Amino acid sequence: MTEDDFLKDLFSKLPSGDAQITVPNGDDSAAFTPTPGMQTLIACDQLIEGRHYLAETPAEICGAKLLKRNLSDIAAMGGIPRYAVLSCNVNSACSEQWLKDFHHGLLKCGEEFSVHLIGGDLASSPGPNAFSLTITGESAKPIQRCGAEDGDLLFSTGEFGLSFPSEHHLHFTPRVEEGKFLSSYAKAMIDVTDGLLLDSQRLLKASANTLDLTFLTQEIPARNFLAKDASLKESFCDGEDYELIFAVGPKRVKELIERWPFSTKLSKIGEFKKGTGKILDDEHILLNFINKGFDHFQS
Amino acid sequence: MTEDDFLKDLFSKLPSGDAQITVPNGDDSAAFTPTPGMQTLIACDQLIEGRHYLAETPAEICGAKLLKRNLSDIAAMGGIPRYAVLSCNVNSACSEQWLKDFHHGLLKCGEEFSVHLIGGDLASSPGPNAFSLTITGESAKPIQRCGAEDGDLLFSTGEFGLSFPSEHHLHFTPRVEEGKFLSSYAKAMIDVTDGLLLDSQRLLKASANTLDLTFLTQEIPARNFLAKDASLKESFCDGEDYELIFAVGPKRVKELIERWPFSTKLSKIGEFKKGTGKILDDEHILLNFINKGFDHFQS
Repeated sequence: MTEDDFLKDLFSKLPSGDAQITVPNGDDSAAFTPTPGMQTLIACDQLIEGRHYLAETPAEICGAKLLKRNLSDIAAMGGIPRYAVLSCNVNSACSEQWLKDFHHGLLKCGEEFSVHLIGGDLASSPGPNAFSLTITGESAKPIQRCGAEDGDLLFSTGEFGLSFPSEHHLHFTPRVEEGKFLSSYAKAMIDVTDGLLLDSQRLLKASANTLDLTFLTQEIPARNFLAKDASLKESFCDGEDYELIFAVGPKRVKELIERWPFSTKLSKIGEFKKGTGKILDDEHILLNFINKGFDHFQS
Repeated sequence: MTEDDFLKDLFSKLPSGDAQITVPNGDDSAAFTPTPGMQTLIACDQLIEGRHYLAETPAEICGAKLLKRNLSDIAAMGGIPRYAVLSCNVNSACSEQWLKDFHHGLLKCGEEFSVHLIGGDLASSPGPNAFSLTITGESAKPIQRCGAEDGDLLFSTGEFGLSFPSEHHLHFTPRVEEGKFLSSYAKAMIDVTDGLLLDSQRLLKASANTLDLTFLTQEIPARNFLAKDASLKESFCDGEDYELIFAVGPKRVKELIERWPFSTKLSKIGEFKKGTGKILDDEHILLNFINKGFDHFQS
């Protein structure tokens, strides 16, 4: 099978029926008509063998994970995910079947979240297989990382810690529906991929370090795996939770809690106060866990 | 320097002043307001060490080449390039300085073509350094690969062959301005990246194999390097020309030639006739060069 044949075979499996796609996959560029009045969101994320999945991880799960990582970025803006383009950089040991299964997993996940794959590139090189996906979405008013103010509360979806041993990092549900709902409540929002502590710091830095964040450490929902709750350090520092954390004004808290329509856990885990970018625990002591978030230049 | 510091340093160098960017680089997703009445184009392409550049190729040139490869895809739709997001997957031997120089080359090229880098991802793994860039563009009416008809002529920009020995593949100018101009003349268009022969076949296949294409082989402009013109085989089969080929209706040919405002060579190199997807030379003999275009599953 040639590359063109592979892609043709793949394209024929793509769901049709999105009237806004004007040039589908298979041309030099794909094209779509943006929804009037909406802003276009765009983000990209990678999936690399040995880092985000292991050689023995089923290919379908890998494909789905790559898309879900990107869906989490759109969720963190409160956006509606729309289209994806995929780069594959695979070695000669990567079989056609593995790659088909990978695409199958990605397309199935795309169907679930109404995302259409409309473009891509396939190349090969030695070294670990690596994939990069760019996702687009739309929103009338994207929720940024900045926007928290003195007196706001920090809320979270879901649970934190132990993502790798529990395989949550492969089987998570990106909080797309929750993000859409939250777009009318959250003043600032981020998805937690590099650990609750590091991503909270990013939220604080985005407010130009004019705030401190005091965590209600007793309220942080710890993931339970094999009858053991994640420790506070694991909840703060393990990566790949793919949950949302967001600032809510004190006047909206009651309404948010009452109207929350999801089975996903909703927790009030912190408070913002005027400050200089410090993160404190509930005894107002600086949180001093080592930042274990992934860092290319440090690791 | 941490990854966040690197990215912050990078973001501060990004050109500002595009009023349609509503959320710049540095949030979970970037956001922009699409131009009313325009379709959004999207395409992605990769740059891999050892395949698209060598370890000794200057980093700035690598960064520019990646963007130019993508610009060529937008040019092939007759579109206006707008925004880019970049995935970097680099090994531990890749220095901070190299990566800064790479970004510098990409940003400088972006300035030249009015493309803004608005998002990205940085990861590391062993193996060759690999980069993937997604570009967006816009067009009121994108020129697709399909659309050629019986009696149309095939035109080309520029010259073909010897792209690697001449280093054309590093120093080419993507035909963005030519593509925009051609959007009111071309009925079908593609950029030649995998060789004139293979990309012509793609143009023919897009017309559902209802056409044959007869090349005026004497008219194909061969690249001259070190006082030697590319052979016919080199012109047809070498890759990475980054030129446009396109179908023009016979009634528009005179006007196209008279109004062509560029110094870029414009050549009439073939004719479309009713048929079954065959490619012939000017003696109506099937062109039978081995297809040397890159193919993941064959190479």
